[in-house]
Amino acid sequence: MLLDKIKKENDIKKIDKADYGKLAEEIRQFLIEKISVNGGHLGSNLGAVELTMALHLSLNFPNDKIVWDVGHQAYTHKLLTGRREGFDTLRKYGGMSGFPKRKESDCDCFDTGHSSTSISAGLGLIKARDLTGEKRTIVSVIGDGALTGGMAYEALNNAAQLRTNFIIVLNDNNMSISENVGGVSKYLNNIRTATGYLDLKEGVYNALQSIPKGDSIVESIRRAKSSVKQLMIPGMFFEDMGITYLGPVDGHNVEAMLRVFREAKRCKNAVLVHVITQKGRGFLPAERHPARFHGAEPFDIETGLPSNPRTKPNYTDIFSTVMTKLGARDEKVVAITAAMPDGTGLKRFRNLYPDRFFDVGIAEQHAVTFAAGLAAGGMKPIVAVYSSFLQRAYDQILHDVCIQNLPVVFAIDRAGLVGSDGETHQGIFDLSYLSSIPGMHIMAPKNKWELSDMLKFAVNFGGPIAMRYPRGSAYDGLKEYRKPIELGKSEIIYEEEDIALVAVGSMVKTAEAVRRSLKDVGYSCSLVNARFVKPIDEAMIAELAKEHRLIVTLEENVASGGFGEKVRDCLDGMHTDCSLLTVSIPDEYVEHGNVSILYEEVGIDEESVTKRVMTAYASVLAEHRMRG
Amino acid sequence: MLLDKIKKENDIKKIDKADYGKLAEEIRQFLIEKISVNGGHLGSNLGAVELTMALHLSLNFPNDKIVWDVGHQAYTHKLLTGRREGFDTLRKYGGMSGFPKRKESDCDCFDTGHSSTSISAGLGLIKARDLTGEKRTIVSVIGDGALTGGMAYEALNNAAQLRTNFIIVLNDNNMSISENVGGVSKYLNNIRTATGYLDLKEGVYNALQSIPKGDSIVESIRRAKSSVKQLMIPGMFFEDMGITYLGPVDGHNVEAMLRVFREAKRCKNAVLVHVITQKGRGFLPAERHPARFHGAEPFDIETGLPSNPRTKPNYTDIFSTVMTKLGARDEKVVAITAAMPDGTGLKRFRNLYPDRFFDVGIAEQHAVTFAAGLAAGGMKPIVAVYSSFLQRAYDQILHDVCIQNLPVVFAIDRAGLVGSDGETHQGIFDLSYLSSIPGMHIMAPKNKWELSDMLKFAVNFGGPIAMRYPRGSAYDGLKEYRKPIELGKSEIIYEEEDIALVAVGSMVKTAEAVRRSLKDVGYSCSLVNARFVKPIDEAMIAELAKEHRLIVTLEENVASGGFGEKVRDCLDGMHTDCSLLTVSIPDEYVEHGNVSILYEEVGIDEESVTKRVMTAYASVLAEHRMRG
Repeated sequence: MLLDKIKKENDIKKIDKADYGKLAEEIRQFLIEKISVNGGHLGSNLGAVELTMALHLSLNFPNDKIVWDVGHQAYTHKLLTGRREGFDTLRKYGGMSGFPKRKESDCDCFDTGHSSTSISAGLGLIKARDLTGEKRTIVSVIGDGALTGGMAYEALNNAAQLRTNFIIVLNDNNMSISENVGGVSKYLNNIRTATGYLDLKEGVYNALQSIPKGDSIVESIRRAKSSVKQLMIPGMFFEDMGITYLGPVDGHNVEAMLRVFREAKRCKNAVLVHVITQKGRGFLPAERHPARFHGAEPFDIETGLPSNPRTKPNYTDIFSTVMTKLGARDEKVVAITAAMPDGTGLKRFRNLYPDRFFDVGIAEQHAVTFAAGLAAGGMKPIVAVYSSFLQRAYDQILHDVCIQNLPVVFAIDRAGLVGSDGETHQGIFDLSYLSSIPGMHIMAPKNKWELSDMLKFAVNFGGPIAMRYPRGSAYDGLKEYRKPIELGKSEIIYEEEDIALVAVGSMVKTAEAVRRSLKDVGYSCSLVNARFVKPIDEAMIAELAKEHRLIVTLEENVASGGFGEKVRDCLDGMHTDCSLLTVSIPDEYVEHGNVSILYEEVGIDEESVTKRVMTAYASVLAEHRMRG
Repeated sequence: MLLDKIKKENDIKKIDKADYGKLAEEIRQFLIEKISVNGGHLGSNLGAVELTMALHLSLNFPNDKIVWDVGHQAYTHKLLTGRREGFDTLRKYGGMSGFPKRKESDCDCFDTGHSSTSISAGLGLIKARDLTGEKRTIVSVIGDGALTGGMAYEALNNAAQLRTNFIIVLNDNNMSISENVGGVSKYLNNIRTATGYLDLKEGVYNALQSIPKGDSIVESIRRAKSSVKQLMIPGMFFEDMGITYLGPVDGHNVEAMLRVFREAKRCKNAVLVHVITQKGRGFLPAERHPARFHGAEPFDIETGLPSNPRTKPNYTDIFSTVMTKLGARDEKVVAITAAMPDGTGLKRFRNLYPDRFFDVGIAEQHAVTFAAGLAAGGMKPIVAVYSSFLQRAYDQILHDVCIQNLPVVFAIDRAGLVGSDGETHQGIFDLSYLSSIPGMHIMAPKNKWELSDMLKFAVNFGGPIAMRYPRGSAYDGLKEYRKPIELGKSEIIYEEEDIALVAVGSMVKTAEAVRRSLKDVGYSCSLVNARFVKPIDEAMIAELAKEHRLIVTLEENVASGGFGEKVRDCLDGMHTDCSLLTVSIPDEYVEHGNVSILYEEVGIDEESVTKRVMTAYASVLAEHRMRG
C-alpha cells in the first residue's frame, strides 16, 4: 500500500509521480470504507482527493496553511497529515472530528463548519503573516456552493486589494449539497463549457464588426457589449474585481494542478485557481446521487444503501408532508431554503409548486430578508432552515422581519444537539437569540402531530413566528394529547402535585420518562408541555407555582436567554415559595458524538435529570421542614 | 415656490420640464434648512435629489414601489409624497422618522435602516407581485457603499435568475460614510472614468494583435485576457452574473435618467442602472467633508459648523486616544472597522498605523472572521463596531471567534439607546446575543477612565472579549474609583445596607443619581459597578444578598438574556431572602427621539428608577413585616 508510506505531513512527497493515480485510488477506497462504517461527508471528500494531493505536494506543512471552507472536505488532508488511525473513531464521541480542528493537528490552522468563511480567515492569516514578516503560503479552498454566501464576496472584495500572495482555490463541482443556484453559478458553468481561445477571437471580431461608425458613444458601447457578451473570457468576473484568475484546470489531474499552483505561488496579489471537480468521484452511487451522499449515514458499499434504514419518520418528513398540504390549500404559501431542499424536506413542495419554492443558495441573510419582502407583498413565506445556520440571519430576523411585524414563519430544523457534526452544528442557541427579539414568537412541538398543528397555526398567525424541532425520529407518543394550539398557551399532560415538569419540545419525551421514574419511587408529578417559549404561559406558571413545591424546566438550549430564565423571571414576580430547577445545556460548546452520549455528557438525559430532580426536591423538602 | 404645488405623491408630474432644475434647487434649500435645525443625514439626501425626482416622474405611487437601501437618503421621497410638514419634527420623539416607515405612508413599502437589504426585499416584492398577478414596477435603490455588504451580493446572485422586470438603481457616489473600499469599488471607479467606445475598440484590437498563432489554448487566453483587461466594457461584472447593465448616467441630470429608466422598465429581467451622484451636492461644506455631513448634528448654514459644538469628549474620543497609545506600545495590535473609521474613532489609529488598520467596507461578517484569522495568526485584533451593526456577525462571533477561543476584542460603540436614528439603530440587544455565546466575556465601563482601563485589559486578555459603551458624552464622574480591572470582578463604589444598586456601564451614572435621591429621603443604599456582564461576579452578588434586603440591577439592554436575568439565576441558587428588582429595556422596539425622552419612555431614567426602587422596597418591607 502506498498509503503505508504516508505517516505524517509531507510524506506524500516521497511518492513517485507515476503512482499518483494509484495513491488517489487507495485514498478513495480508504475513505469509502471508513465512511461506510462511521458515516460522514462522502461526496465532497471523494471529489477533493487529487486536489488535496496536489496542494500537499505544492506546500510545506505545518508552515504553509490551508483554510478549508466548511471543512467537511478535509478528510484527505487529515489522512495526509498523520491522522489515518483517527478514521476509526471518525465523528464518534471523543474521536476524530469530521471538520478541521486546530486542537487536533498543527496542520489545521483554522476551524470551520459553516460555509463561506475561508477567504475571510485566510485574509486574516495573510495580514498576520505579512505584519510579522513570516514566509508561508496561505491557501483558502472554497466550493462554488460556498461562493453563493455573501461573506465570501465581502472577503473577495477585500482580497482584491492585496499586494501580496494569497491563493484562493475554487473547488467547483457545480453543487452545493444540491444543485448550485444563481447567476455566478451559471457564469462558472459557462466557463466550464466554453471552448476558450477560438470563441474569444471570433467573438471579438464579431463584436467589432457590429460597432457602426459615428454612432453615439453610449449606444455603441451597449450594442458592442451585447455582442461581446456572447464571448467567454474566462474569469473576467474575478479579474474585474482585481483578482487574478487561473484556470479552469481539471481537479482530478494532479500534474495539471501542480503546474497551476506553481504559477499561482508566483503571483503578487490574490489569485483564484478554478479547479473543476466531480462530487462523489469514484463511487458510482455518490456520483449519481450527490445530495444523498453529502452527509451519509453508514451504508453498504456494494449497493450504496443505508446499513440501518430508517423505520420511523423524522420531524423533517412530517414537516415535508404538511408543507405539501399547506401548499395545496393556500396559494399564498411559499417556501424558502438556503441550499437545503433535501435536508429541510422541501423537495416535495418544490416538485409540486415550483413557482412558490425558492432555493436561494447558501445565503441565510438573503433568505430571511427575501421572505420579509414576500410577506410585505402579501405572501405567507416559510423559511425552512437549520438552527445553527439561522444564526447567520439574526440581524435580518430582528431588523427586517420583526420591526415590521411581518408574517414570516421560521421552521427551524436540527434544533438541539445534532450529534456527529459537532460543535459548529449544534442547534442550542436559537431559543436565546430569538427570545431577545421583540415581536418574535417561538414554539416547539412535543411530537409529530403537534409539529403539524403548530405549522398550520404558524402559517395563519399573522406575525413573525418560529417553530423549532430536533434532528432524528419524530416522537410518536402522547398522541391523545392534541388540544388546539393557542397563542402563548401551554398544555397540561398530567396533573398531580409536589413536582411540576415543564418541558420544551423534544424534552417533553424526556420529561415523560423522568416522570415515570419519579412515579416509580413514589413522587407525585405533573407534566406540562410548554408549547410556547415566547410568550410564555404566565398564568400556567402561576397555577403550577400554587399547586407544587418544585417546578422543573427542561430545554435543549443554553441557559442564557432560554426558557428556564423566563420561567424564573415569571416566578420572581409572584412571591411564591415554589422552587425552580432549570435543566438546560451548560454554557459551553458541545463536541461531536452520538446524541445519546452527548445528552448524558451535558446532563439532560433521563437518568441525569431524574437524579437532579430528586436532589432538588429533597432540598426543597428540607427547607420547608426547616421553616416549619 | 414650485414645492407648494407638490402636496402628495405624483404631484411632481405637474411640474414643467423646464422647471426641474429649479425644483431640485428648492428641495435642496428646504433639506439644508430643515436638517440644519433638526440634524439628519445631509450628504446622502443632497446627492439623491434629482435621482428621486426622476424616479417619481417615472413611477406611479403608491402602486409602484421603491425600496431604499439603508433608507437615510429617502428625504426627497418623503417630501414628494406629502410629508413636507413632517420635516419640522424630523427624527424627534413622536415626529417623522429619518428612515422609510410603512406606518408613515403607503408610499413606503419596506422599512430599512441597516445596509444592503434592499435587493433582497425588492426580490421578495417582485415574486409576490408575479405570484399574485399584480402589475407594478419595483425599484431597489442601493448605494455603492451598501454593495460592499455580502447580502447585497447574495441577492444579486438570485436576481440574476429573474425572467421578469426588476430595476436596481446603483446610486454611486464613490462613498460609504467614508471613502468606499474594495475591488468592486475600484471597478466602478474605472467605469466612471472610462472613455468608453474608443477605448473599447482600440483595446480589443490590441488584444487580438497580441494573440500569437498556434499557441496553446490556455496560455493564449491568459495572455489575451490580460490585454483585454485594459479595456473597459462597462458593467460586464454585472452582465457576467446575468444582470443587464445600463449606464453610467449622470445622477444630477433628470432628463438623462428619465430616458434610462424608460429603457430599464422594458427589460424582462433584472437590470442595474448605474447612476453617478455626488454626496452633499449643492452644499459646499458637505461636498468638501462628506463624512462629517453624513449624519449631521444641527449646524450653521453659513459656516457649516455645528450649532452646539461638543464641549466634552465622548466615549468614541476616549477609545480613539487609547487606541493610538496601544498601537504605539504593541505592534501586534491591529484595528478593524466596517466602513466606520470616523464613527468608531479609528481614524487617528489609521493615520498613525496604516498597515495595521483595516477598513473592510460595510461587511461586519467578514470583519469578524477576518479578525479571527488575524488572531489565529498571532495578532491582537480590535474590532470597533456599533452595537446594532454587530448583530450582523452573531454567527461569526460564535462560530469563528469563540469556538476557537481566539483573542479578538470587540469595542462596541453606540450600545444602549442611540436616539434620533430610531428602532433600527438602538444598541439594546448586544448583552443578550453575546451572553448566549460560550467563551465570550463582556464588560461595560462606568466612566471614561474605566473605558481606557478595560480596553488595555482586553487587549492582553487572551480570549474573546467585548466592551460596550454608549453614544454621547463620556461620564467623567467617579474618577477616584479606579481599582484595577480583574476578570469577572465588580467594583463597590458605596457600601451601605438595605438596598444595593448594581449597575452596568452607562447605568452607573444613573444609579448614582438614583442613590442620591434615595439617600435624600433616608434610605441606606450601596452602589456597585458591575463591570462584567459575563462572567458575573457571583461572590459579590452573594455578599450583597447577605447584607441587603433588595438588589436592583440596572442595564441599558432588553431583559431577555441580559444582566438582570443572570443575577436572578445567581440569587436563585443561594436560598436568600433578598429580593431583586431588574431595570432594563422592555421587550419592544424603541423609536426615534431625544435619548433623555426615550429613557423616560422606557422607564430607565433617574426619576422612574427611583420610584420603582421605592415601590419595590416598600413591598419588600411589607413582606418582611408579614413574615414577622
